[in-house]
Amino acid sequence: MINPVKGTHDIIGSDAALYNFIEAYFRTYVGLCGFEDIKTPIIEHTPLFIRSVGESSDIVNKEMYTFLDKGGRSITLRPELTAGVMRSIVSNKLFATNDLPMKFCYFGPCFRYERPQTGRFRQFHQLGIEIVGAKSYLDDVEAISTGYYSLVPLGIEDIKVKINSLGDEESRQAYKKALKEYFQDKIENMCEDCKRRFEVNPLRILDCKVPSDIEIVKNAPKMSDYLTDEAKHHLELVLNQLDNIGIPYEIDENLVRGLDYYTGIVFEFHYDGLSEIGAIGGGGHYKNLLKEVGGPDLEGVGFSCGVERIEAVLKSHPDFTPPYRSLDFYVMAIGDNGVNIAYKSMMELRLNGYSCEMNTENKSFKALFKIALRKNAKFAIIIGDDEIQSGEITIKNLKTQTQTLAKIDSLVDVAKSLHFDYLQDEKNGGSSENE
Amino acid sequence: MINPVKGTHDIIGSDAALYNFIEAYFRTYVGLCGFEDIKTPIIEHTPLFIRSVGESSDIVNKEMYTFLDKGGRSITLRPELTAGVMRSIVSNKLFATNDLPMKFCYFGPCFRYERPQTGRFRQFHQLGIEIVGAKSYLDDVEAISTGYYSLVPLGIEDIKVKINSLGDEESRQAYKKALKEYFQDKIENMCEDCKRRFEVNPLRILDCKVPSDIEIVKNAPKMSDYLTDEAKHHLELVLNQLDNIGIPYEIDENLVRGLDYYTGIVFEFHYDGLSEIGAIGGGGHYKNLLKEVGGPDLEGVGFSCGVERIEAVLKSHPDFTPPYRSLDFYVMAIGDNGVNIAYKSMMELRLNGYSCEMNTENKSFKALFKIALRKNAKFAIIIGDDEIQSGEITIKNLKTQTQTLAKIDSLVDVAKSLHFDYLQDEKNGGSSENE
Repeated sequence: MINPVKGTHDIIGSDAALYNFIEAYFRTYVGLCGFEDIKTPIIEHTPLFIRSVGESSDIVNKEMYTFLDKGGRSITLRPELTAGVMRSIVSNKLFATNDLPMKFCYFGPCFRYERPQTGRFRQFHQLGIEIVGAKSYLDDVEAISTGYYSLVPLGIEDIKVKINSLGDEESRQAYKKALKEYFQDKIENMCEDCKRRFEVNPLRILDCKVPSDIEIVKNAPKMSDYLTDEAKHHLELVLNQLDNIGIPYEIDENLVRGLDYYTGIVFEFHYDGLSEIGAIGGGGHYKNLLKEVGGPDLEGVGFSCGVERIEAVLKSHPDFTPPYRSLDFYVMAIGDNGVNIAYKSMMELRLNGYSCEMNTENKSFKALFKIALRKNAKFAIIIGDDEIQSGEITIKNLKTQTQTLAKIDSLVDVAKSLHFDYLQDEKNGGSSENE
Repeated sequence: MINPVKGTHDIIGSDAALYNFIEAYFRTYVGLCGFEDIKTPIIEHTPLFIRSVGESSDIVNKEMYTFLDKGGRSITLRPELTAGVMRSIVSNKLFATNDLPMKFCYFGPCFRYERPQTGRFRQFHQLGIEIVGAKSYLDDVEAISTGYYSLVPLGIEDIKVKINSLGDEESRQAYKKALKEYFQDKIENMCEDCKRRFEVNPLRILDCKVPSDIEIVKNAPKMSDYLTDEAKHHLELVLNQLDNIGIPYEIDENLVRGLDYYTGIVFEFHYDGLSEIGAIGGGGHYKNLLKEVGGPDLEGVGFSCGVERIEAVLKSHPDFTPPYRSLDFYVMAIGDNGVNIAYKSMMELRLNGYSCEMNTENKSFKALFKIALRKNAKFAIIIGDDEIQSGEITIKNLKTQTQTLAKIDSLVDVAKSLHFDYLQDEKNGGSSENE
């Protein structure tokens, strides 16, 4: 027996249906917001992620699936989706042919060599958006509101939006200096990751999850005390607009995000009901990312969410019911004579938009009825020797147990009409069930 | 500048829309046929593909992206999707909880280190199905007909279905022996691949694309002369059922498929109008595949098609038009005072199911109108200082140039009602355009 690779999982049955539901809703909503789908490759040249995600990040340091291909190139399975979108904007010169800001959405697999735990896999899936060529605080609002409304209507009403500003270059330099001063005599007693972060990006120390480090971080200087007037004003405009459109939020001054490329506004989406999975998603503004990967000097803002985390949150709701599968018609061909009529009718029903299956093996009526019930079939179409001889086929409503006879030539038409009545009846509260 | 990895491609703009259209149609159709989605990981342990796809295949021999992960495991990026589905059936014991045959569909990326050429990429995408626990010739018909109707309604009416039977074990042994005898004194002058195939699986020699080898293959013994009566009868039943449901086909005795696991019926979907891409897809019956990967003794049948090949065929049609993007409302906020009303109205329209965007930068009316036209907006909603002062907002139909005034409080209602009229008007042939 061959096992799945550690940290990967098969998405099957009602989980696959839930996954597809999340994707379909996301694509619909971001489509309404004017985001265009972009599908970048899963493999990229390794330097792309070193330059974008950043050398101080855990992702680049510890978690990338990097290997040499047969041509000796260093290839990495993408650990996140933003870098590839930036690379694609540059490779395809999309900035030359699109109105700014460009708005892209994506949905797909990512890979990180992490310790597998609740809601965290080595192959996981992200949905998200990027707004590139962003010049206004409204683009930051668009990223936050699009994330918020990609989650809330799925049934996660009590999303908590956490926001922080990493400020502009001037704010950040002053704050980093203050952090360095504060941590200087404390860093020796902090974790190895923090020691590295202290050297390359002290902001990331605020993100540390080690309990003793969290204690030390508590009294660190606050970003808000180092924001320039301009950065403060920008944050205020974003918050005012969120108030205007009714999106609740809270300020979290320790929010820095795990990637090096963020500048300005950063944000996360949390769900308190399942705190062990951490943030469902998040994002922020990036001033230099496109330039870093060889593109023009355009700023951007985006968010991404973990699909597996969304699923975990949805499934944690007490009233969660998995997506329900049903079948319009189950055709029972009893005996060899009925097979051709059964198959042809099934194909005609499918091509008319009805879901339809039939038995491919000869089985007893009883066994076939059990299968039809397990498939949640609305109707059974019974084609046996008797029916062939009389020229009339039985269509049985499996809810009401009503049987209707249809001539072979008009079988599909009668089936369609019975299906229409079935839906009408459901719409009217299923009254005929009790008739 | 960082290039995309050789042989990979970004799917953007109307190509992404076309790709999503193909996926959506496929999922809808196979859903009607009762196939359940299965999403297996992109990375699997390397032995899975060696055992399933087979050591004599080009894929395993030359084309796999194989590497060691940080834990020292040999991991391969899946070169095809069937093996993962089989592994998943075993890992999750799906055969114990599902009615047989189980019917699965999939859609996703695969990786092969091939020379990039028309319609062939190193990261490409496949759609397909597997029917596992197949006991009847009808399951073979189901695989062929599902492939056929996953392609034809997309606009590829002139699909050519090629069919062959590799027979049962007895037929195949006799035929392999005959092939070995025929090629014995010829193999020395044939290509290196054929020499290898001669040793491990002489059937695959029939598949050779080298012109001088094709000449030699022409006079080779024919499979049909070695089929047992049972295998002949099975093929006949399949062909008769295809006749019954009106799917045209032709027999191709050289059709063997590039994977080792096929037994019995094999088939391919071709499109003559773009012969350089080879088959759009294909599949066949496999007797031992599930057992090979550690599962129970269940037979199966499936097909897969290349999404990029489907796209290439669709785009080669002279009357092909790429999917069309449009926007219901483009909101123009002129001056700072209009921004809050604009943003709030936009969000309300989106959450009511209308596509809506707004300018985030202050631009001239003229510039904004150009953007609205490039976005194919149906309506412009103009919110400037004058509008704020008068309390009445202008909604402009960009097709008829008709302007309507709406009070701020009823802006969204008026917009919705104008949109309804717009659609009615389009349904009636767009008469008001000429009024």
